[in-house]
Amino acid sequence: MIKIALDAMGGDFGPEVTIKGAMEAIKAYDDLELYVYGDEKKIKPYLTSTERITIIQTDKVIDMGETDPIRVIRNQRDSSMVMALQSVKDGVTDGVVSAGPTQALIVGAHLVIRRMKGMHRVALAPIIPSFDRKGKILLDVGANVELRAEHILELATFASVVAKSYLQRENPTVGLINIGVEKGKGRQLDNESYELLEKSPHFTFVGNVEANDILTNDADVLINDGFTGNIVLKTMEGSMKTIGKILKQEISSSLGGKIGYLFMKKNLNRFKKRFDPNEVGGAMIFGINHPVIKAHGASNSKAIFSAIGQARTFIKNDVVGEAAKLLKEIKIESEENN
Amino acid sequence: MIKIALDAMGGDFGPEVTIKGAMEAIKAYDDLELYVYGDEKKIKPYLTSTERITIIQTDKVIDMGETDPIRVIRNQRDSSMVMALQSVKDGVTDGVVSAGPTQALIVGAHLVIRRMKGMHRVALAPIIPSFDRKGKILLDVGANVELRAEHILELATFASVVAKSYLQRENPTVGLINIGVEKGKGRQLDNESYELLEKSPHFTFVGNVEANDILTNDADVLINDGFTGNIVLKTMEGSMKTIGKILKQEISSSLGGKIGYLFMKKNLNRFKKRFDPNEVGGAMIFGINHPVIKAHGASNSKAIFSAIGQARTFIKNDVVGEAAKLLKEIKIESEENN
Repeated sequence: MIKIALDAMGGDFGPEVTIKGAMEAIKAYDDLELYVYGDEKKIKPYLTSTERITIIQTDKVIDMGETDPIRVIRNQRDSSMVMALQSVKDGVTDGVVSAGPTQALIVGAHLVIRRMKGMHRVALAPIIPSFDRKGKILLDVGANVELRAEHILELATFASVVAKSYLQRENPTVGLINIGVEKGKGRQLDNESYELLEKSPHFTFVGNVEANDILTNDADVLINDGFTGNIVLKTMEGSMKTIGKILKQEISSSLGGKIGYLFMKKNLNRFKKRFDPNEVGGAMIFGINHPVIKAHGASNSKAIFSAIGQARTFIKNDVVGEAAKLLKEIKIESEENN
Repeated sequence: MIKIALDAMGGDFGPEVTIKGAMEAIKAYDDLELYVYGDEKKIKPYLTSTERITIIQTDKVIDMGETDPIRVIRNQRDSSMVMALQSVKDGVTDGVVSAGPTQALIVGAHLVIRRMKGMHRVALAPIIPSFDRKGKILLDVGANVELRAEHILELATFASVVAKSYLQRENPTVGLINIGVEKGKGRQLDNESYELLEKSPHFTFVGNVEANDILTNDADVLINDGFTGNIVLKTMEGSMKTIGKILKQEISSSLGGKIGYLFMKKNLNRFKKRFDPNEVGGAMIFGINHPVIKAHGASNSKAIFSAIGQARTFIKNDVVGEAAKLLKEIKIESEENN
C-alpha cells in the first residue's frame, strides 16, 4: 500500500475540493491509502466511502494569507498541514499533498521532514504547459532567491530524475534559462552553472534557453535561481490571464464576435484547457527526504486528484532514492576534483 | 527643423520599410528633416518625394547577426548605423532611428554619441502593451546584466521623464519588478533599489510589482536589472506567440471553429493588433546624450514611422535636457548625504 497524507483543509476551497479529489484518487488507484488531516465534521459531507481512508481530527488550519511561515510552522504543530508533514516524518505515510500556503509548506517540509542527503537547497518546481502538450519542469520558482551553481546542479539532477519517472522522458534534457543562447551569456551564476551542467553525466544539457523559447523548446527541465524562475512563472501567468481577458473583450465587442463564439465555443474551451493549471498537477518541493506536492491554492477536485496521483508516482518510483544515488556520485566527483 | 538620422539599411527588410516609413513621417510632420544613411540605389525606388530628405551614400551595413558589437562599431565607421550615430555626435542631426542589431546600436550609441552627464549606465527600454491600452516603459531589457541600486534610481528618473513627455502621464509612477509585493522581498539589489526609489521626489514609487501583474498594474515604468527585464520581456513575447499558435491550432481543428472564425475575424485581428510591437514604436536607449531609438528588427513601415515620431517627440520635448536637470539633483542629494 502507498500511504499519502492529505492536508484536507488547505487551499481556497478546503474540504469540498480536497475530499472530492481524494475520493476520485481512491477509486482510481487500488494501491492507495489516504491519511486525511482536518476537521471531520467538514470532511464527512464529501466522503462517499471510507475505504482506505483514515481521518485524523484537527480543526486548526494555517491561514492562506500567512506571511511568517517559520513562526507558524513552529507554533501550529496541531494544524492540518504540520500534522500531515509530521506523519511522513514519523513513518506513518510516505508523502504529502497540500493546497495550503506555499511558503509555509516549503518551510514546513524543510523543518519537519528535513532535507534529503546530498541536496543543499530545496526548490519549488511546478510543471508548466508546453506547446507540444507534454509539459516541462520549471525551477526554482521561489524557494531560494539566490542559489549557487552547485545548488543548480543538484536541483537539475533531481529534476532530471523526476522528468524520467514522472514525465516519462527516456533521456531527460535540461536547459538553463538565460538572456542569450551562446555560452558566456548572462551573470556570473549563469556562467558557473553552465560549466557544471555541461559536464553532468546524468542528463543531456541543451545549453542556455532564452525566455521567449521556454514554452516551445525541447528541454524537459528549465532551471535557474528562485528569483528568475519566479519571474518567468509569474510573467507567463500574467500574460496568459491578460491575453484571455483581452480576447474575451474583443470577441464580445461586436455581434459578429458573439455569433462566432457560438460556433467555436468548444475550440475556445479546449484552448483554455491547454493552459489550465488544474490539468497539470501540483508543484513539487524538491530536496525533501519524501515527496511533498503543493497543489495550487485555487485547486479544484481534479487538481487535487492529479496531485495525489503525482505523489503516488513519486513514491512508487522511489524518486527520492533514485535521485540520492545520482547525488552521491556528484559528491564523489567533486571530492575527486579536490 | 527637427533633424533625425535614419539608418536606412537596418532591420530585416532594409530600405523598403525604412524609406516607406520615412515618407510617411515626412508627410505627417512639417517640422521634420531626415538624414538618410544608406545605399542610394536601394533607397531611390521607395522615395516618393525628396522634400526635407538628404541621402548620405554608404553601401556598408552592419549585419543583423553581428555577435561582436564593440569590434564592429570600431571597425565599420562607414556603415549606415555608425554614420547615422556620428551625425548626431557632429551636431548635424538631433537623434537617431535604427532597426539594426540591438547590441551594436547600444554599443555604438555609447561609443559614438556618449553617455549623458549624471547617468552611469545606459539601458534598453521598450514600450510594452498593457491591458488599459496606454502602454508602459519596461527596463532594462538587456543592456546591463547587472546594475547597482543607484543605477536603477538614475534610470527610473530618466524613464519617468519619458513617461511624462512621451506617454503623457501627468504624474509618472514607477514600480520595481520583484518576486513579492511586500517591502523586503527579493535580492539585496531589490531591497537597496526599493530604499532609493521610495525616497525619490521625482516620481511616485508604487513599490514592488509581481511579474504576473506587469500588464495590468498601474505603474507607468517597470524597472529592474537587465537580466530580469530581459527575462520578463522575452517570457511575455514567448507566451503571446505560443498562445497565438495554440489559439490558431484549436480554431482550425474543427468546422465549427472555422465557421466561427469567419464571423469573428475582425475581432481576432483587433485582438492580435493589441500585442503587435509595430503599433507601439521602438525601444529607447536611455542614458545617451541624444535620443536613440531602436526599431525592432522585424519592423514594418508603420513601426519605422512610429519610431521616427518617437525620436521627434524626444527631441521636441528635450527629454535628455529635462532628465539631466533631475539627475543633477540626485547628485546633489547624494553629495549632501556624504
